Amino acid sequence: MAITLADVEAARRTIAGRVLRTPMLPAPKLSALTGASVQVKYENLQVTNSFKERGALNKLASLSAVERERGVIAMSAGNHAQAVAYHAARLGIPATIVMPVTTPFVKVHATKACGAEVVLHGETIADAQLRAETLEHERGLTFVHPYDDAKVIAGQGTIALEMLEDAPDLDLIVIPIGGGGLIAGNALAARAVKPSIEIVGAEAALYPSFWNTLRGEARPLGGATLAEGIAVKNVGALTLPIVRDLVAEIVLVDEQSLERAVNAYLTLQKTMAEGAGAAGLAAMLAKPERFRGRNVGLVLCGGNIDPRILASIMVRELERDERMVSVRLTIPDRPGVLGQIATRLGELSANILEVDHHRLFLDVPAKGAKVDVTVETRDRAHVQEILAALEAEGFQPQRIEAAVAME
Amino acid sequence: MAITLADVEAARRTIAGRVLRTPMLPAPKLSALTGASVQVKYENLQVTNSFKERGALNKLASLSAVERERGVIAMSAGNHAQAVAYHAARLGIPATIVMPVTTPFVKVHATKACGAEVVLHGETIADAQLRAETLEHERGLTFVHPYDDAKVIAGQGTIALEMLEDAPDLDLIVIPIGGGGLIAGNALAARAVKPSIEIVGAEAALYPSFWNTLRGEARPLGGATLAEGIAVKNVGALTLPIVRDLVAEIVLVDEQSLERAVNAYLTLQKTMAEGAGAAGLAAMLAKPERFRGRNVGLVLCGGNIDPRILASIMVRELERDERMVSVRLTIPDRPGVLGQIATRLGELSANILEVDHHRLFLDVPAKGAKVDVTVETRDRAHVQEILAALEAEGFQPQRIEAAVAME
Repeated sequence: MAITLADVEAARRTIAGRVLRTPMLPAPKLSALTGASVQVKYENLQVTNSFKERGALNKLASLSAVERERGVIAMSAGNHAQAVAYHAARLGIPATIVMPVTTPFVKVHATKACGAEVVLHGETIADAQLRAETLEHERGLTFVHPYDDAKVIAGQGTIALEMLEDAPDLDLIVIPIGGGGLIAGNALAARAVKPSIEIVGAEAALYPSFWNTLRGEARPLGGATLAEGIAVKNVGALTLPIVRDLVAEIVLVDEQSLERAVNAYLTLQKTMAEGAGAAGLAAMLAKPERFRGRNVGLVLCGGNIDPRILASIMVRELERDERMVSVRLTIPDRPGVLGQIATRLGELSANILEVDHHRLFLDVPAKGAKVDVTVETRDRAHVQEILAALEAEGFQPQRIEAAVAME
Repeated sequence: MAITLADVEAARRTIAGRVLRTPMLPAPKLSALTGASVQVKYENLQVTNSFKERGALNKLASLSAVERERGVIAMSAGNHAQAVAYHAARLGIPATIVMPVTTPFVKVHATKACGAEVVLHGETIADAQLRAETLEHERGLTFVHPYDDAKVIAGQGTIALEMLEDAPDLDLIVIPIGGGGLIAGNALAARAVKPSIEIVGAEAALYPSFWNTLRGEARPLGGATLAEGIAVKNVGALTLPIVRDLVAEIVLVDEQSLERAVNAYLTLQKTMAEGAGAAGLAAMLAKPERFRGRNVGLVLCGGNIDPRILASIMVRELERDERMVSVRLTIPDRPGVLGQIATRLGELSANILEVDHHRLFLDVPAKGAKVDVTVETRDRAHVQEILAALEAEGFQPQRIEAAVAME
């Protein structure tokens, strides 16, 4: 019953030529950022932009002729849905995907575009799950579980085989952990091929389900996380014992680390990671001493992030880096003052991005006004220089958060 | 004097192991978008995130011991600067880079971080160029030209050798064209290896220097382009004859095609392209019938784009796709109306992103107000449904462009 290296090797033969053998490349700027020697496995380059295709295809390919004819069902609002839909269509297997009614339209559309029937049902994942189970029995469909299935786990484990072929010197692989399918498959494959390798799990701090189970803690689970792909409240029955045996440590990643990691992938590595996809890098940023000086492999496991959220992350990071600053100024409400401010900012080489002028605030004197100005800056020293100059002109500058349109 | 395949093969041996052999991967979603079979060469994954390292390293490695000791000089505000600085530092060659004083701080910083001395001089590229020539002679430095140099051209050509090894079935390669170094090197290498292959150049419509020269036209050159990396007003003396002989066609790409291409790389292919880096894809979008049904190779030649600009492109594309809409409503200025609007939008599943309330516009009745509301939408039909509902409530909705913070 136990899943072995032989199962992962068989999965690799099954998916060969039908799932991309993704690149594994050195990431020198992420190495400089973390102090480790980092290599990245680009699973976001799969057709549906996540690793989920490996497990889904391995499962689908294992079905009997009768099961294929009847079709499959899955419950997912995310990457698993697209992976099952895409590979079922290629194999000519009818696929039904149940999603909560709250699922963003883009994800529903992407799954339908792959050829699946989408059933929108229930406000929550749990409601949708119940509906999927009902349909499974009513229609005689085969359920494709996102993680707690031996074929799925073995399929995901093919990543580690490719990573160690391309980079045999790895000391450590950091793997995002939700239901545990990805980490279980890869832990068993990697440790079988290279027993000395360490496997570290990166779990969202808001959803510490493996952390709680393994440590006997009861930290709360829930909340809005950037890493919705690993926001799982349960551990898998099949994945838990593998994780317990083979994973050295679980690092909890908070929202800020996730956001920094998504941004680092984008600006330093020029690639798009969703929150869950960046969780491994987030773990390195959250706990750098754990990884420093070592050969670390990261699985960039998914790239499906809402463009609005990504745009917001990029702008927030510019503010954090003080490459953009917003200040509120108190000014006398007479002609020419805005021109004076703009001129002064120009002299300071601070490019103005946005101006917002208020006169109705209660804390403004009747003959005064407030102006919010957002400017592009070079760095912290430049920000300080600008604030000092505005202070000297008598505008009482106060730093505020920029009015970013798409938060 | 002519550059040959042997020069490119020699360059390949020279740069082997010191410049990344980048992935060449099928891009099924870009194929679906364009109707061609598209494969992408990811030059944006180089350490300094552009192909420029190939030519720069090939040139640097060709210098004599005396030349290396004296050092090199280059003039560039962009990718060439970082490429020269990075590889000069690795070879222990002192590098001086002249940049116009208007160069964004981030690029100056990135070049300094590679270990080069940066000289900021002149308002324009031409001024900086003069300064670089003066320093070349005063200090006895070797000038590393960004494109008009046989070693540089041969170095860039190594890309085509790798592409055809990985994808021998290519019918056509689309290559961005600025000064012509990238396209010249790759045209001569690709046509030597596979004489039947077509090479198409993608030139910015605002900077049609090769187009003008080859066709005897005199279209104007200039203006702010997203593809600043190929905004070159001259053609190279070495590159021109190669382009004339070996390039089948030049496609001019306008700003909207460039913007769509950058966005398509990001949202469909999960990778970051700068404007010039996306020019090949932009050519496919601008002239789809030219490429339909063929095996097309794209060189994603650079990924250095300002995060602010990228964020703005993403948001604008959402508006174009009608996944986001802004409307200005005229409302009676009394309590409760905003609540009424918000409730109605909620019923229509239109998620509110931003609200801006004006009462001081002259075209508003004294007892009225205007509200700008930006909402997240599903598609065109959803937008129409929302507009009709707001009309029915008497708010006279007018569509406007969203107030995007970072344009």
